[in-house]
Amino acid sequence: MKNLIIASTSTIHGSGYLDYLLDELSEFYKNVENIMFIPYARPSGISHDDYTKKAKEAFLKINKNVKGIHEFANPIEAIQSAEAIFTGGGNTFVLLYQLYKNQLIEPLKKVVQNGTLYLGTSAGSNICGLTINTTNDMPIVYPPSFKSLGIVPFNINPHYLDPIPNNPHMGETRETRIQEFHHFNTQPVVGLREGSWLRVEGESIILKGELSARIFEYNKAPFEVESNTELNRLK
Amino acid sequence: MKNLIIASTSTIHGSGYLDYLLDELSEFYKNVENIMFIPYARPSGISHDDYTKKAKEAFLKINKNVKGIHEFANPIEAIQSAEAIFTGGGNTFVLLYQLYKNQLIEPLKKVVQNGTLYLGTSAGSNICGLTINTTNDMPIVYPPSFKSLGIVPFNINPHYLDPIPNNPHMGETRETRIQEFHHFNTQPVVGLREGSWLRVEGESIILKGELSARIFEYNKAPFEVESNTELNRLK
Repeated sequence: MKNLIIASTSTIHGSGYLDYLLDELSEFYKNVENIMFIPYARPSGISHDDYTKKAKEAFLKINKNVKGIHEFANPIEAIQSAEAIFTGGGNTFVLLYQLYKNQLIEPLKKVVQNGTLYLGTSAGSNICGLTINTTNDMPIVYPPSFKSLGIVPFNINPHYLDPIPNNPHMGETRETRIQEFHHFNTQPVVGLREGSWLRVEGESIILKGELSARIFEYNKAPFEVESNTELNRLK
Repeated sequence: MKNLIIASTSTIHGSGYLDYLLDELSEFYKNVENIMFIPYARPSGISHDDYTKKAKEAFLKINKNVKGIHEFANPIEAIQSAEAIFTGGGNTFVLLYQLYKNQLIEPLKKVVQNGTLYLGTSAGSNICGLTINTTNDMPIVYPPSFKSLGIVPFNINPHYLDPIPNNPHMGETRETRIQEFHHFNTQPVVGLREGSWLRVEGESIILKGELSARIFEYNKAPFEVESNTELNRLK
């Protein structure tokens, strides 16, 4: 049975790394001692070692051990034998590129479908959707495909941001970007605000956190769903 | 001899489409009657016809005729016989995808290298760089490559945006994104603020408009260059 937390962000303004999620994670990982961390998204370009150290420090607070996937000789076997997996944020293109390069897409998909606990934040959440076509990241590397894990039957837009009133900047709003996406693609998009996450258990997908999420479906006006709404009808 | 205007944006806050550039364009296009418009970037997903109509209305103010590339039976021949070309903004991935699909990259590169007047705004400017790896756009379609025209020997980041002080949103700043780009790529990036443009004449590349631009070079601290600075040493 699938068992995931798909979080918009690792960090909310004014608090430490993963702090806002620690109570939830303590419960989520209660039967687990060791978490395998996938540091491939490299926020600000930091090394796999440095990023893993950061995750390690956060999980020490709830008495879990963290080991980076790059510390294993065989990353496919590391995924197959992991008790639990956490994929951190950073650049979604860099993350997906490295997963394809190391031939990890199918193994990762398989273990997550079969119930290995999975936590994603930001880029690590983006790849749980059907494709990364709705990432906010800069395309700094060219992955062999935009197809991602497809653990949920829609796309995710993490760090969802409402239009800023009277913004003098002429770049597109997030809503405009996602509506442009729907000129070329038909799957729904879940705009997850910072502080929100999806709790996936088997076929159930529930919005968690205090905020509402914005849902974009093909040929429909976007709408808000409140926290604790079941999203499993979206596809 | 190359002869281009590579503009950050088509529109600055509080004024109409292309208004801030019209004096410059009147001079740029003074020996030209007809401009071929490339509407492929489809901002907000608008049709090629509607987008061309918008460009047509703007250029009527300086007595130029505009015809969309999609109105020609053969787009390669249309590029080869154009007096002048304007590529509008929108989504850079959609624009590049369509240029590849219609096999226009090489023909477009060739005529621009040989002196056909070229105006780009936003996405239409982005493709003048070496690659589109520094676009701000959402990757709503998957182009066969991120390589673009390479008319200038660096990358462009249009709509360059300074960090917003005390922003509670945890997404990366533009500067962070471009620095992440330099973990995987070595070419310089020119951050062009809205209202700025590059005037390219032969080997000369000069920053125009009232604002400074932010330059990012591999393994160097980013720095500002003032308007009217020659940028041809960047490569």
